[in-house]
Amino acid sequence: MKRVLVTGFDPFDNEPVNAAWEVVKELGGLTTENAKVVVRQIPTVFGESISTLYTAIDEVNPDIVICVGQAGGRSAVSVERIGVNLSDARIPDNRGVSPVQEPIVPGGPDGYFSTLPVRAIVEAVREAGIPAEESWSAGTYVCNHLLYGLMHRLQDEIWSERGVLGGFIHIPFLPEQAVRHKNAPSLPADLVRQAIEIAVGVACPIEMR
Amino acid sequence: MKRVLVTGFDPFDNEPVNAAWEVVKELGGLTTENAKVVVRQIPTVFGESISTLYTAIDEVNPDIVICVGQAGGRSAVSVERIGVNLSDARIPDNRGVSPVQEPIVPGGPDGYFSTLPVRAIVEAVREAGIPAEESWSAGTYVCNHLLYGLMHRLQDEIWSERGVLGGFIHIPFLPEQAVRHKNAPSLPADLVRQAIEIAVGVACPIEMR
Amino acid sequence: MKRVLVTGFDPFDNEPVNAAWEVVKELGGLTTENAKVVVRQIPTVFGESISTLYTAIDEVNPDIVICVGQAGGRSAVSVERIGVNLSDARIPDNRGVSPVQEPIVPGGPDGYFSTLPVRAIVEAVREAGIPAEESWSAGTYVCNHLLYGLMHRLQDEIWSERGVLGGFIHIPFLPEQAVRHKNAPSLPADLVRQAIEIAVGVACPIEMR
Amino acid sequence: MKRVLVTGFDPFDNEPVNAAWEVVKELGGLTTENAKVVVRQIPTVFGESISTLYTAIDEVNPDIVICVGQAGGRSAVSVERIGVNLSDARIPDNRGVSPVQEPIVPGGPDGYFSTLPVRAIVEAVREAGIPAEESWSAGTYVCNHLLYGLMHRLQDEIWSERGVLGGFIHIPFLPEQAVRHKNAPSLPADLVRQAIEIAVGVACPIEMR
Repeated sequence: MKRVLVTGFDPFDNEPVNAAWEVVKELGGLTTENAKVVVRQIPTVFGESISTLYTAIDEVNPDIVICVGQAGGRSAVSVERIGVNLSDARIPDNRGVSPVQEPIVPGGPDGYFSTLPVRAIVEAVREAGIPAEESWSAGTYVCNHLLYGLMHRLQDEIWSERGVLGGFIHIPFLPEQAVRHKNAPSLPADLVRQAIEIAVGVACPIEMR
Repeated sequence: MKRVLVTGFDPFDNEPVNAAWEVVKELGGLTTENAKVVVRQIPTVFGESISTLYTAIDEVNPDIVICVGQAGGRSAVSVERIGVNLSDARIPDNRGVSPVQEPIVPGGPDGYFSTLPVRAIVEAVREAGIPAEESWSAGTYVCNHLLYGLMHRLQDEIWSERGVLGGFIHIPFLPEQAVRHKNAPSLPADLVRQAIEIAVGVACPIEMR
Repeated sequence: MKRVLVTGFDPFDNEPVNAAWEVVKELGGLTTENAKVVVRQIPTVFGESISTLYTAIDEVNPDIVICVGQAGGRSAVSVERIGVNLSDARIPDNRGVSPVQEPIVPGGPDGYFSTLPVRAIVEAVREAGIPAEESWSAGTYVCNHLLYGLMHRLQDEIWSERGVLGGFIHIPFLPEQAVRHKNAPSLPADLVRQAIEIAVGVACPIEMR
Repeated sequence: MKRVLVTGFDPFDNEPVNAAWEVVKELGGLTTENAKVVVRQIPTVFGESISTLYTAIDEVNPDIVICVGQAGGRSAVSVERIGVNLSDARIPDNRGVSPVQEPIVPGGPDGYFSTLPVRAIVEAVREAGIPAEESWSAGTYVCNHLLYGLMHRLQDEIWSERGVLGGFIHIPFLPEQAVRHKNAPSLPADLVRQAIEIAVGVACPIEMR
């Protein structure tokens, strides 16, 4: 039985909800044939998002970490391929901070690939009739910040020896959010939640003996 | 009790389903406080679509006619404002016919406004948390053809005297269709069906005595 | 020799320039084999735009009227097909007025087709290597207002007997405007001016004897 | 006086021209106050593109390398921030090869940042009235392949000790290409060429004594 940590951010940018947390919060306690899901909320704050994630990793001791974030304007579930070592904020975070072209880990590598089975997840989600795509940029806001921070941590011996996998999934606005954003695509929470469950299943395949 | 005729097209352009029919077919027999819905499928064929609609109107004798069509690429439920007197096909219809800049009713007026309460429908659908918008072009394919044909018919004395209202609603791809169209927005059938039900309700207000 | 009246709007919506006027102002006095161009600036104001146009028509006594407007967000020269009898402003006009769902000509027809050779213009502009498209909606702001007002006037006996033609062309932002609008497409003024000259030429064919 | 190597690709994907080469070919021999430009054409071929570039670097012995590629669908000059260690082709290259999720340099780092002054270039180009943006993904086709290959080479002691800088700039379709791509944004070659010249100038600042 694998332990899967799934995170979602709190609301930001004047939205009353964050699609990511709306989707993720219902997944807590989910048990599949091969996985048990634990969920945590992450603050949309540079720095604090990463420290909150690190605390959660220490507590949950997961085999897989999937961070989920809202990407208003996208029309499909976007499985990210890479986090980059730079933060650059178009709008302030939830503590009012707006880094400009700052490295996340000074001296760290320029990018870290997600270690989730990105393409397999995309294909499985699409097979279930839910729009999904690979994405090659998680932006330069808190989402990318968290992804880079996560992948940096998973390089540590304690996690890398155990082969802990991690990555990030961006999701569209919910329909009730899109109502306030002209022409913004959206997908309802239950459909996206199904996509995240599929991602968990693909990342935790049932081992045959 | 008002009779509402709701139509949806059959599949076209190599799609296995038409989002419009998937949404509409389940609405048959729906009874609200003030309306009873009858549904009909319309062929995606120039000419025949209009004659099929006229037959349905004669049979159903409706107070309201709402035609529904699929507009792949749109992200919201689009309530059309006007049908124009011209057909111009980018792809052949389901009988292989592709009119080029042909009037629908030779000598007819250039455009007919929908007589549905367009803005009220858009606002009510949005209030229910479903993305909706007014649209000022139903294109020049079979959807616009049917809308123009409908509004032309409703000018006839028999219908205009009774104040029969009509119009057209375009809907996005379903998620399972969007999977095959890169970056295409989508909304699930049950959410869009709820939007059409709201449109019916707004078009058939409960009269206070 | 035909007289062609070409109009462009003044700046609005906090833009320092209006792409339409930047393009049009240089066309004044242009003489082709078969046409002489007169240009006029039109205020971006409901009502006043139409009266300014009517005065210009009376003064210039044109054979052809081509109104040009800026459509930020479009990537091609858009030759409009229809003006509709409704004004609905997302932002106030240059006098601070924002009509809501108001008819332009109470009791007027729902729509008027442009009488320019729309498709021939689009094809000729494209042949010159300049992106162009037909458009089926000029919106519901001052541009559509002016187009509807123009086509309404050209129904008058004095103009219709002479076969005076008219229509509207929307153009993208200029590159220097797009700099301030994330992801907005643009085309430079000289290229768009060439497109308008081509439109003039197509609308005023040299008659063979 | 700095030597600047600027490259552009040959046509691909059934386009008669490649916007990048149309822009770049005229820059050969350009001499600014502080730089001399040498241009080279690069084949749109996995592997061969990189070897052609390496040969050019050896021959030209540049201080700065700027590779230019066409990104149909973008509306602005896009200065890329990162190349990633993966090739994945949606369409075959000009030798008919379509790699699927293949590393470019097996065992190489996941990503390499461009060492051009990306933000300064974007700002200078925009100041000149030409739409420009930073981009966080050069895709996974030959453009990214070349960018990653370039940055990998510039790690070599021979180049890194001298502080040779490099990076990649994506440009929109030319207007004459956009004519064949519905709704595709475009910018003319002379305007984009001016942007590349500005990039060269920003990357080769005049040193004050």
